[in-house]
Amino acid sequence: MKTVLAEILTIGDEILYGQITDTNSQWMSAELDELGIRVIRKTTVGDTEKDILEAFSEAEKRADIVLITGGLGPTNDDLTMPMLAKYFDSKIVMNQDVLNHVQYFFERRGRVFTELNRNQALVPEIAEVLHNELGTAPGTWYERNGKIFVSMPGVPHEMKNLMKSLVIPKLSAFFQTPVIYHKLIKTVGIGESYLADKIKPWEDSLPKHISLAYLPSVGHVKLRLTAVGDDKEILKQEVQSLIDDLMPMAAKYIYGYDGMTLEKAVGEMLLAKGKTIALAESCSGGYVQHKITSVAGSSAYFQGGVVPYHNDHKINVLGVNPDTLVQFGAVSEECVKEMAEGVRKLFKSDIGAASSGIAGPDGGTEDKPVGTVWIAYADGEQTVAKKLQLTQNRALNIDLTGISVLNLVRKSLKQ
Amino acid sequence: MKTVLAEILTIGDEILYGQITDTNSQWMSAELDELGIRVIRKTTVGDTEKDILEAFSEAEKRADIVLITGGLGPTNDDLTMPMLAKYFDSKIVMNQDVLNHVQYFFERRGRVFTELNRNQALVPEIAEVLHNELGTAPGTWYERNGKIFVSMPGVPHEMKNLMKSLVIPKLSAFFQTPVIYHKLIKTVGIGESYLADKIKPWEDSLPKHISLAYLPSVGHVKLRLTAVGDDKEILKQEVQSLIDDLMPMAAKYIYGYDGMTLEKAVGEMLLAKGKTIALAESCSGGYVQHKITSVAGSSAYFQGGVVPYHNDHKINVLGVNPDTLVQFGAVSEECVKEMAEGVRKLFKSDIGAASSGIAGPDGGTEDKPVGTVWIAYADGEQTVAKKLQLTQNRALNIDLTGISVLNLVRKSLKQ
Repeated sequence: MKTVLAEILTIGDEILYGQITDTNSQWMSAELDELGIRVIRKTTVGDTEKDILEAFSEAEKRADIVLITGGLGPTNDDLTMPMLAKYFDSKIVMNQDVLNHVQYFFERRGRVFTELNRNQALVPEIAEVLHNELGTAPGTWYERNGKIFVSMPGVPHEMKNLMKSLVIPKLSAFFQTPVIYHKLIKTVGIGESYLADKIKPWEDSLPKHISLAYLPSVGHVKLRLTAVGDDKEILKQEVQSLIDDLMPMAAKYIYGYDGMTLEKAVGEMLLAKGKTIALAESCSGGYVQHKITSVAGSSAYFQGGVVPYHNDHKINVLGVNPDTLVQFGAVSEECVKEMAEGVRKLFKSDIGAASSGIAGPDGGTEDKPVGTVWIAYADGEQTVAKKLQLTQNRALNIDLTGISVLNLVRKSLKQ
Repeated sequence: MKTVLAEILTIGDEILYGQITDTNSQWMSAELDELGIRVIRKTTVGDTEKDILEAFSEAEKRADIVLITGGLGPTNDDLTMPMLAKYFDSKIVMNQDVLNHVQYFFERRGRVFTELNRNQALVPEIAEVLHNELGTAPGTWYERNGKIFVSMPGVPHEMKNLMKSLVIPKLSAFFQTPVIYHKLIKTVGIGESYLADKIKPWEDSLPKHISLAYLPSVGHVKLRLTAVGDDKEILKQEVQSLIDDLMPMAAKYIYGYDGMTLEKAVGEMLLAKGKTIALAESCSGGYVQHKITSVAGSSAYFQGGVVPYHNDHKINVLGVNPDTLVQFGAVSEECVKEMAEGVRKLFKSDIGAASSGIAGPDGGTEDKPVGTVWIAYADGEQTVAKKLQLTQNRALNIDLTGISVLNLVRKSLKQ
């Protein structure tokens, strides 16, 4: 089967001049990749007639699909609709459905509907309108000589909703893309090359129609399995059976699948076990609590926590023994264990976890250079601690400490 | 003077397929914009000979400058160097300086230098080598018919260092770009359109060679003044005098200039006044403490804090009166004031600040819908509180609460 090729075209001066980051095109690329459609180019041009028309015609030569975002506002700067009309030799007409939706959209929000807003309902006559329920600028779909152009608003949540609900199903049907099933396996606590070594026999055994990609990010490695075939249910079963085979080699590193995050995985384990948690964060400065409370519903298992940024507070608030600090210092196994135990008692939680370290750039010594961090877990039956030797970079050290604390809790709960 | 035009070309399958976000091109755009160089297009192509060569030749037709990143690794996938050699009709040669640097780079890190790594020192004979002190892939510079091609590694910190230290000064000299002076004025606590209304007389009075741009982001609006002329010192003085004129209209919203962040600005105010702070965060869940401790040196003024995620802990840890909770609830002026006062005492800090609210998506009531948040500031002499009515989005509510708490501290310290 011939590979379907796509080009992503972003329109807007604000992206060319570096005023905003284009996150849309990465998201769209990943979605198309999952469909088996190959993105061959991304282009950004400004709000200029000539550049937009040139980009249309170059893209049409190279690709089967041209996905366009941006340039759909109601003002004169916004040229995407008139340029599409020109390119497809079509009149611009007022679309009554879009007009009704835009009016309703404004009324519902108590905003005044002006003449300018009516412009949002002007679309090329030749276009098929894609209803944008989350905003006022409609999507439009064009078909010519077996090629497809799609125009969508640049507002990320509007574009994503249009893609998911309308554009992807329509592209899939039009190009009869093969059935593809993806599964993300999310791991933490092991580097990419070590993981690859560990699972090599499994990777070598993958059948030809199922491929594996390593997607590393700070502290994490995602494994993506992509299965291509005719029947989604069969592919799902095959992938699940491969994951079962993987388990003996990698179970301890896997915290979830697909959209799962580490903080959400830990939260679900706590919920399932009916346990609550509290945090004592020195060097991570509240970051772990921020991650935990970013999850909706976390109040069911998160009791709270303390950031004792000075030794006095480790003693007065958390009950760390002053002798511990004198004898071993704040960045020590002894201190971090007492912190985890102390915060557990203070918040009457089942579990306490703690961090203490030197985030940098200052504060390092010969014995304990910048990047030295101790983390601990306490649950009343056991208290465990772990030393980390991290980097010279403060932001990265905070991030990595946060991931390590969450992972220590995860591993302890798993036992 | 003719505007100098630039095109940014990013090379790499991993960007086309959506595996990594391209943050480089936004940063480069903003830098070129500050130089007065106009970016007319951004293009991303994959690791494919034909696509790369086509992109070179199209870009050369349109632009005076072609800035290229990516595709410089030592493996066979990485095609940027051989394609540049082909495009400029040049041999590939081993550059001894680069080779020495790469060897030294590996030795210093205790990593084994392999034959493959030698490939990093292969550059087109025609190129001027730009020394990459932070990595192994060199930058290269090409000049033909008054047009410039520059190739740089895709690793962001290597690219940025090369741009700042070598590429920007060389482009500036080659194209004799005018002297441009930029100043960012950072505001918080006022929306873009309200700010524009307030400073309209000032904006209307700006001289022709100094322009103003509004750059809004969550909770903040940046004003960017761009002055164009011949003498940087004169431009600087003119801009400073305009900022002095702006002050009577906008001083209360301005927290800093250029690279300043709100959390850093608050930190510097605390340092200057010799004051310390502690935080009690319920709905913001540690986010404010995370922001404060992200700043290097924050231990000089940050004592610590508490996240009392349940009412019990507001009482037991922070000393909130149980009657307050019964009578007014946790999300109330009375409770948040007691939290700010309580955390100030607990951590023996000069200042206490607090948040309590309903971040969502659940937990709202008719009286206190999702997005209802109270914040407070206490310094022993006064305790002030403020009610916020935020959004339906949990992540956004946490972010906006954090900004509002920091801004309340800033305004209180300013008095």
